[in-house]
Amino acid sequence: MKRTAFFISDGTGITAETLGNSLLSQFEGIQFRKITLPYIDTIDKARETVAQINRACEEDGEAAIVFDTIVDDAVNEELSRNRGYKIDVFSTFLKPLEKELRTHSSYSVGKTHSISEMNRYKDRIDSVNFALDNDDGARTQQYDRADIILVGVSRCGKTPTCLYMALQFGIRAANYPLTDEDLESTQLPAPLQPYRNKLYGLTIDPFQLAAIRHERRPNSRYASLDQCDFEVRTVERMFKQHDLPSINTTNFSIEEISTRIMAHAGLLRRNN
Amino acid sequence: MKRTAFFISDGTGITAETLGNSLLSQFEGIQFRKITLPYIDTIDKARETVAQINRACEEDGEAAIVFDTIVDDAVNEELSRNRGYKIDVFSTFLKPLEKELRTHSSYSVGKTHSISEMNRYKDRIDSVNFALDNDDGARTQQYDRADIILVGVSRCGKTPTCLYMALQFGIRAANYPLTDEDLESTQLPAPLQPYRNKLYGLTIDPFQLAAIRHERRPNSRYASLDQCDFEVRTVERMFKQHDLPSINTTNFSIEEISTRIMAHAGLLRRNN
Repeated sequence: MKRTAFFISDGTGITAETLGNSLLSQFEGIQFRKITLPYIDTIDKARETVAQINRACEEDGEAAIVFDTIVDDAVNEELSRNRGYKIDVFSTFLKPLEKELRTHSSYSVGKTHSISEMNRYKDRIDSVNFALDNDDGARTQQYDRADIILVGVSRCGKTPTCLYMALQFGIRAANYPLTDEDLESTQLPAPLQPYRNKLYGLTIDPFQLAAIRHERRPNSRYASLDQCDFEVRTVERMFKQHDLPSINTTNFSIEEISTRIMAHAGLLRRNN
Repeated sequence: MKRTAFFISDGTGITAETLGNSLLSQFEGIQFRKITLPYIDTIDKARETVAQINRACEEDGEAAIVFDTIVDDAVNEELSRNRGYKIDVFSTFLKPLEKELRTHSSYSVGKTHSISEMNRYKDRIDSVNFALDNDDGARTQQYDRADIILVGVSRCGKTPTCLYMALQFGIRAANYPLTDEDLESTQLPAPLQPYRNKLYGLTIDPFQLAAIRHERRPNSRYASLDQCDFEVRTVERMFKQHDLPSINTTNFSIEEISTRIMAHAGLLRRNN
């Protein structure tokens, strides 16, 4: 069975998309064709959207599922003329919340992601710059400013995790790749020694590591299963020996790796 | 008035957080203390969480607002014993959706961000690597693989935007900084000429640009208002002359810049 799902917003669409994907992922048997329509902020655009939804309903022979987070009353009213199955996120929750909070909501368009929270914006950009400046062990003299320092072998997921923590949560995350040289020693690498309490280990299944490296450098020693297996075993021994917390990234998404590390290390979101 | 808001999940917490922030941002007069508690996936953890919520209610003298996306029935039941104002996202929407979709939901824990969707994961990591490899004009020979190429002066927001599009949407975004040399010519820089239809301009208020650059290199010519003003004016003329689409990033968040560019350029999300 195929159904179309729409995520519609007068802002970025991220809230509708996040909630919608989360709900739809609970229905494994159904394949959804997903369409995000952000910035639907005029009656004309709402009218076009209704036509698009109705076409999808006809093509599928089933009602499309329509998640929307539009706050403007007139735009919302126009949009609601669609023949899909409507999940109006804001009207479901805002009215009861207004009652509980004993005040009216501002119904301001796209307020969540507004740059008006200038500090939050600056924190995130600073954190992205920090992650880039301190990526891949390129620089180690800023480690005193780091919230966390990820350590692991090359291509185990350190960089995307650092960038995600920076963009999503404003966390300053550095990362240090453990090289063959580092792995020959039983000591922690010298630049890491003063920051033991900020270190967090990443490890990965050697087969997956070999596959990832193979895409980067096909048929290299670097990508060989032997080499990957050796590195992973050594690094896991190092984590154990120095009692470093660690996570195996193999079966986790970037979101899961990031939020699990943060929860475990007690790092608070800077964007809230 | 101060209130505490909790975002609680047995997964990453990102859905509860995104929806909750979006709803709470509609109440401008109230300052919320926000607490995210991810991976609440046992009855013991739920019990601790209830205690934490109840303490917040007492301290505030008001009910805490509790957004939760827990799917496990037993954990949810335990959690529901808290004295906060509960917004149970999943139970609100999943039951009606099950009816509409004529099937049961899997109620699987943290399914949204599950790595089981391996292709989506690979797309995002590839896109992050693409953004890093093609950052700041470092390399231009991969532009044929780019979904979009952002152009603009140094520090106008190109890199964070590219990284966000990669991580959130799996878009392959390169960026090319327009240097003084580029700005002296009325031609598009040579590496960009074959890719006119992939170019998207970023511009920014000169005062904000000067402030951002000043943090990076205080009191430099690079950060002077004169220089910033000159660069911005020249770059905006270039966008106009070559009829390039562009966005002024001054008042937008990274989410807004990214989703507006994507909507305008007709780029589809690779992660849906």
